[in-house]
Amino acid sequence: MALPDLPPRSDTQLGDLDPEELRRHGHAAVDWIADYLAGIESRRVLPEVAPGALIAQVPSSPPSQPEALERILADVDALVMPGITHWQSPGFFAYFASTASVPGILGEMLTAALSVNAMLWRTSPAATELEQVAVDWLRQMLGLPAPLFGVINDTASSSTLYALAAARESIPGAHIRRDGLSGRADLARLRYYASEEAHSSVEKAGIVLGTGTQGLRRIAVDDALRMDSEALAEAIREDRANGWLPFAVVATAGTTSTASVDPVPAIAAISEREGLWLHVDAAYGGAAATVPELRAVLDGCERADSLVVNPHKWLFTPMDCSVLYTRRQAGLRNAFSLVPDYLTTATDGEPSVTNLMDYGTSLGRRFRALKLWMVLRAFGTEGIAARIREHVRVARQLASSVEATPGWELLAPASLSVVCMRAHPSSVDDEAALDDLNARIIDAVNARGRFFISHTKVRGRYAIRVAVNGVRTEERHVRALWEEMRGVADSTAPAP
Amino acid sequence: MALPDLPPRSDTQLGDLDPEELRRHGHAAVDWIADYLAGIESRRVLPEVAPGALIAQVPSSPPSQPEALERILADVDALVMPGITHWQSPGFFAYFASTASVPGILGEMLTAALSVNAMLWRTSPAATELEQVAVDWLRQMLGLPAPLFGVINDTASSSTLYALAAARESIPGAHIRRDGLSGRADLARLRYYASEEAHSSVEKAGIVLGTGTQGLRRIAVDDALRMDSEALAEAIREDRANGWLPFAVVATAGTTSTASVDPVPAIAAISEREGLWLHVDAAYGGAAATVPELRAVLDGCERADSLVVNPHKWLFTPMDCSVLYTRRQAGLRNAFSLVPDYLTTATDGEPSVTNLMDYGTSLGRRFRALKLWMVLRAFGTEGIAARIREHVRVARQLASSVEATPGWELLAPASLSVVCMRAHPSSVDDEAALDDLNARIIDAVNARGRFFISHTKVRGRYAIRVAVNGVRTEERHVRALWEEMRGVADSTAPAP
Repeated sequence: MALPDLPPRSDTQLGDLDPEELRRHGHAAVDWIADYLAGIESRRVLPEVAPGALIAQVPSSPPSQPEALERILADVDALVMPGITHWQSPGFFAYFASTASVPGILGEMLTAALSVNAMLWRTSPAATELEQVAVDWLRQMLGLPAPLFGVINDTASSSTLYALAAARESIPGAHIRRDGLSGRADLARLRYYASEEAHSSVEKAGIVLGTGTQGLRRIAVDDALRMDSEALAEAIREDRANGWLPFAVVATAGTTSTASVDPVPAIAAISEREGLWLHVDAAYGGAAATVPELRAVLDGCERADSLVVNPHKWLFTPMDCSVLYTRRQAGLRNAFSLVPDYLTTATDGEPSVTNLMDYGTSLGRRFRALKLWMVLRAFGTEGIAARIREHVRVARQLASSVEATPGWELLAPASLSVVCMRAHPSSVDDEAALDDLNARIIDAVNARGRFFISHTKVRGRYAIRVAVNGVRTEERHVRALWEEMRGVADSTAPAP
Repeated sequence: MALPDLPPRSDTQLGDLDPEELRRHGHAAVDWIADYLAGIESRRVLPEVAPGALIAQVPSSPPSQPEALERILADVDALVMPGITHWQSPGFFAYFASTASVPGILGEMLTAALSVNAMLWRTSPAATELEQVAVDWLRQMLGLPAPLFGVINDTASSSTLYALAAARESIPGAHIRRDGLSGRADLARLRYYASEEAHSSVEKAGIVLGTGTQGLRRIAVDDALRMDSEALAEAIREDRANGWLPFAVVATAGTTSTASVDPVPAIAAISEREGLWLHVDAAYGGAAATVPELRAVLDGCERADSLVVNPHKWLFTPMDCSVLYTRRQAGLRNAFSLVPDYLTTATDGEPSVTNLMDYGTSLGRRFRALKLWMVLRAFGTEGIAARIREHVRVARQLASSVEATPGWELLAPASLSVVCMRAHPSSVDDEAALDDLNARIIDAVNARGRFFISHTKVRGRYAIRVAVNGVRTEERHVRALWEEMRGVADSTAPAP
């Protein structure tokens, strides 16, 4: 490649836009956000747009000359907003809501302006140390014993991937980090375990790590959709006999489908006995442990090797923010630390200095701790517990209503804030017809625009799934949703 | 786990803070940001804090009761800001700067407020479609031929990991996604190739993927620190003869140490002949292709299977934003797509609908496209090219000054915007003494506070490394840095 000489700078305006532009349009953006949040309930949760609608409306090529911020922001309103699904709506009951709370938004504003990279302590000491403070505060709120190392990642998918990489690296004598997995006569096929209800990210991690989908053995669940720990012990025994090399177990405290909680104490006992790394996916459910009465959700997790909790799920922190905890800090670092010449610093090796890039794959690390720290302070531990307690109370109330209503049935116990149910008119007993009926109920509710609910399958049955975890969702919204579901069901004829 | 019943809600304030709080403190935050950017030059770039300083100042436990936002924001000033490294300073010449430009910050504000998850088209159609628009706009700016699939990830570490996962999955007949890598007599040890100068993330990807550090073979570089393509061809030949299974090559267009550009056309020819996936790491250097005169930086990349460019490096977009392009969209999707029941949607399979969660590990996906789209519009393609052209011109000017100055030497050619140099007084010829001298020059410059420069090693020699890629950095800053470096060098005695 030969690159030409370049002429001296022309008169073109260089540099950033004037900070006064930020002031002017930033004030307008703040008003826009405040109005957006204040009026969120008046918006359709799911947009009414066809695929390709936005693409058809924006120019197919970027502008050659600068465009005014007024015009760009006007286009956000005109072109982008019609295609936004409103995750901030109190009527958002799909998946798990991600709450952009007021303190979280303020934190993101400052993080964006500073745009520091918390890869090394030196590249922003306050970002690294505030991360240590925030994750330790959260540890205390969850009732987990110290010392416990924590690090913030983007999502639980990354946190679980990193935990399983550390688990893999901790296989005695295997030296997988150095020698890899393939072409080795000394290494058996690796296997790890999770329940049939475990999240797809648990399986995806194995795809990436090279253990393959076959390397994940799914363990059966009991009537309450919790991992059957005896089946786990039996599976490990069987796999060892068949030449597999078990290395980890992933338990879930709050599954995605039904919020079921695996029996972690029993699973921990098996993991310890078998010498397997125990990772707990508490991405959603962990937040419940901030409520003293619900702390049992993390029973046994003090024995886990690692655990993930996502503040962007049920702790009112904007996307993205996932905390990976581990009792085996060195194990995690051993799996990932790799320091090229250009990233060495004088403080490397000082025990008081942590370089957080050493605990995962991403070298670029946003200053995510700031928003989490601001959220925890702005709500206080009792304020957060009160909100989560209320979500659980309201969800259970909905579950009770479902149980008490003829023509409806609960498809899973509702112990946290997820309720799985279906309409089951006495006139219909064909499972396929019921699946179809309930899919149509969901579509009809969503089409009305006030609510967004999603589905799952519970033991093969199509379920209407309602997750109550957005900070703006109150009892009245859940009651209104329930009323609407019943109304829609009454006017939705089963397929003939 | 048995969870108790919960009492009805108390009188505790629930829900989010009042949007009027966002309005009031948001306006204050905007003024703070505008003042911060306007006054950025008056701040020390590297903070003067000892390890643990922030931790010592904040309470060791979270507050039980809510704290006022005034107080929290005041603490950001009092406790956090003293420990911030100012990546936005025009005096930031270390690593690669991440610019928070005015349009980028505005984009992040809106992204935070919406806090949508762009995992499925349905979970925010506009977020998915704007991502497709923004990455296609950038593709055009880079001069890459259509069609080219692109997706935004957090960092190049993830983008390169995903690309190599797709490469691994494309090994004919290997079915690694399903069967994994270990315990298979039918699978040899996997190997991929990158130059000695390739980024640490390339090696880290192999650690995660289970090919191991031994699975990466480092190829020698030529005098200009570019991969020796003949050595690559020979290494592949040798490895095949020794029973390795080569599967990918990673070329770099703009290395981290010196911004050298591998000979991609020659490497592409070898990769094609050998049937290997070619990934190009243009995380930093790719941006130069937005300048028509510098487009040769991506010569041959139209033949690459995948390529990564980071708008958060040299395209004035706040952390984090990394674009992974691939000509083999199906290959990437095949490596990652995994759709559980609860994430199926009615539009799955419609050719006009893309679910971006299918192209990587992270299920949670921030709406990163918004800031990129706003940055591209606010600067325009010519505005972006002008800024990058100026960075290159100024960096080369610095390189010329170094070459022309007795007692200094350039350690690598400066074709893009990175300059590697060292002081080399005629009185010193011991390499260890030169390393020490230059380390002390860097420390002294950084200690003065006006600039932040970092080091690297070039062929084993300790180098002062200056990267010119922050949007606020002008010729005058580079001239002042050079003056300061020379002054510091003159007053820094070589070790006796």
